[in-house]
Amino acid sequence: MSNPPIFLAIIGLGGVGQAFLEQYEQLRQRLASQPNPTNLALILARRSKTQVLSERYGGLDATKIMQMLDESKKPYLPFDAILEFLQNAPGKVVLVDNTSDLDLAKNYPAVLSKGISVVTPNKKAFSDDIKLWDSIFEAAAKGGSHVFHESTVGAGLPVISTLTELIETGDEVVRIEGVFSGTMSFLFNSFMPVGAEGGKFSAEVKKAKDLGYTEPDPRDDLNGLDVARKLTILARIAGLKVESPTAFPVQSLIPQALESCSSGDEFMQKLPEHDDEMEKLKSDAIKKRKVLRFVGSIDVKSNSVKVGLEQFDASHPIAALKGSDNIINFYTKRYGANPLIVQGAGAGGEVTAMGVTGDLIKVIRLLR
Amino acid sequence: MSNPPIFLAIIGLGGVGQAFLEQYEQLRQRLASQPNPTNLALILARRSKTQVLSERYGGLDATKIMQMLDESKKPYLPFDAILEFLQNAPGKVVLVDNTSDLDLAKNYPAVLSKGISVVTPNKKAFSDDIKLWDSIFEAAAKGGSHVFHESTVGAGLPVISTLTELIETGDEVVRIEGVFSGTMSFLFNSFMPVGAEGGKFSAEVKKAKDLGYTEPDPRDDLNGLDVARKLTILARIAGLKVESPTAFPVQSLIPQALESCSSGDEFMQKLPEHDDEMEKLKSDAIKKRKVLRFVGSIDVKSNSVKVGLEQFDASHPIAALKGSDNIINFYTKRYGANPLIVQGAGAGGEVTAMGVTGDLIKVIRLLR
Repeated sequence: MSNPPIFLAIIGLGGVGQAFLEQYEQLRQRLASQPNPTNLALILARRSKTQVLSERYGGLDATKIMQMLDESKKPYLPFDAILEFLQNAPGKVVLVDNTSDLDLAKNYPAVLSKGISVVTPNKKAFSDDIKLWDSIFEAAAKGGSHVFHESTVGAGLPVISTLTELIETGDEVVRIEGVFSGTMSFLFNSFMPVGAEGGKFSAEVKKAKDLGYTEPDPRDDLNGLDVARKLTILARIAGLKVESPTAFPVQSLIPQALESCSSGDEFMQKLPEHDDEMEKLKSDAIKKRKVLRFVGSIDVKSNSVKVGLEQFDASHPIAALKGSDNIINFYTKRYGANPLIVQGAGAGGEVTAMGVTGDLIKVIRLLR
Repeated sequence: MSNPPIFLAIIGLGGVGQAFLEQYEQLRQRLASQPNPTNLALILARRSKTQVLSERYGGLDATKIMQMLDESKKPYLPFDAILEFLQNAPGKVVLVDNTSDLDLAKNYPAVLSKGISVVTPNKKAFSDDIKLWDSIFEAAAKGGSHVFHESTVGAGLPVISTLTELIETGDEVVRIEGVFSGTMSFLFNSFMPVGAEGGKFSAEVKKAKDLGYTEPDPRDDLNGLDVARKLTILARIAGLKVESPTAFPVQSLIPQALESCSSGDEFMQKLPEHDDEMEKLKSDAIKKRKVLRFVGSIDVKSNSVKVGLEQFDASHPIAALKGSDNIINFYTKRYGANPLIVQGAGAGGEVTAMGVTGDLIKVIRLLR
């Protein structure tokens, strides 16, 4: 006896999407060859301006998706038509959203209320206006569908699942503190490494950009909004009603005078003129034998969330971080003085896709 | 519409069992009051020599279990009778084994093959002869039941779930290394702290014993078998065919001359005579500016597992561990040079029970 087939739709085929596609194909083969097999059928792949559909729901060959998308001549369908196509599938459907598209996320309530499950690393879906958050989870409850988003914080690291389990098993989360951005981690581990001097801030930003660790426009990292979005998600899971990622203090590392730069290039050109501001912060920290790190913290009891630079002792686990690693410390009643810590790479296509594939495996278990 | 009720049987009501009972009652109330409620019914509580049953499967009051067990005058039933009682429950059943009883674990295949799921922190069940391991998972597949054992390694820390997800999503686990014993962690963090001198080994063992960090007989920690059992479990999940926890090198910290001590008290009395042996290891490490830690490691490629003392740089995360924390480093292909790290308290009634309750929540989701 085999389990009923499960139908998959993938939207977004950039770095994360393509890494996911590889992991998906491996998973599909493994599940199909088990003693009690489950068949997965990929019925839609969609990216900006083009898509391919398996019109009879037989399933597309995942290894040929990129080529099929390149060659597709079919007109680009509106999302309503896509939703109708998914609803008509002869079985349970999972939508895998590998974009960072807020407009797509606004369709999640409609998708979930129709019984279609969602797995995604799309931070914007869960960190925008709290009304969207509420309507997503209400729709999932109503539709009997599932929504998982492990990779919205710390990529494939077990951050959201760990926080959820602490809460569901009745622990009291007191504080969450950590480095939530691979870019900011790399930047400050280079700008102010423990026991070494480090470079000028603008030079480290340039290095991070050249190595591909920043967004194409580094201001999108330096404004702190990416970290603020992740904090919003964790705070909401911890039970705080955070209206939006701009509803709490977020320190931007963009010098005020450069906020009006018309391009990322202009910004990068002028950033060295402002190195003195960061050098001053660095020397203040050195005087106290501390290092600077860009962290986010959630204090559950006082209902406060904040993002910005903090000083840490050289012996603190946050100071000792390496490369572009993330670290997340959960301080809880049960764990006492020493936090539960999760640490490791928190960005990159493969580890982000791993979180998505892990979520997909959980949904498949629940659906079959 | 409510979900079908799920029936629970608890065996073992020591420190972990009683902490679990509290978490269970909180979970029961939460699930019963949800918009789409699930009712949990506790139908059996059993400890050595006594048990209470809910004969009509209506459910026992968890808050009165300890009293009911103390007052119970009913004869102690053989396990076969218990299994028959569980099989006759009018719905799905989960057995929660909070003992460390190998004889009970040998019944898991019979339990699982009858469709009854198992959640447990019982290390012996998964680290004994590999034939028991195989028959447990074969029985679960045959019976369509679930078996979860997160708390067998690192208590409530997400160790087994993380390793499983790395593997299921197609990552290649290269090496696992860590401190897997709260007792050993405390002992070596005190015997050889970073940047301080520490005490004599026998004095630190005595301190750990007095604080309740060791087994009643500290030899049960110092022989390394507890760590060897945990390594056996992780290695098997990683795909290695480890026959038993004595099938690989395990360093015992019991001096050879004291192996024949007839009691733990005699051992503790004579241990100071052997402090020189540990002092020599300490001074060897100091010469290299390193510290000693009692670690376990699994090298997946070379199929080697070992447990014992290793030297670490003061800056290594394993050296910087505090209190009785565990740390587990997963080195994988996807994560590259910097491992995925999970760290925190790895022993204690509440955090161990948390892993069990977390597993129970997963099983409930799969059963309803």
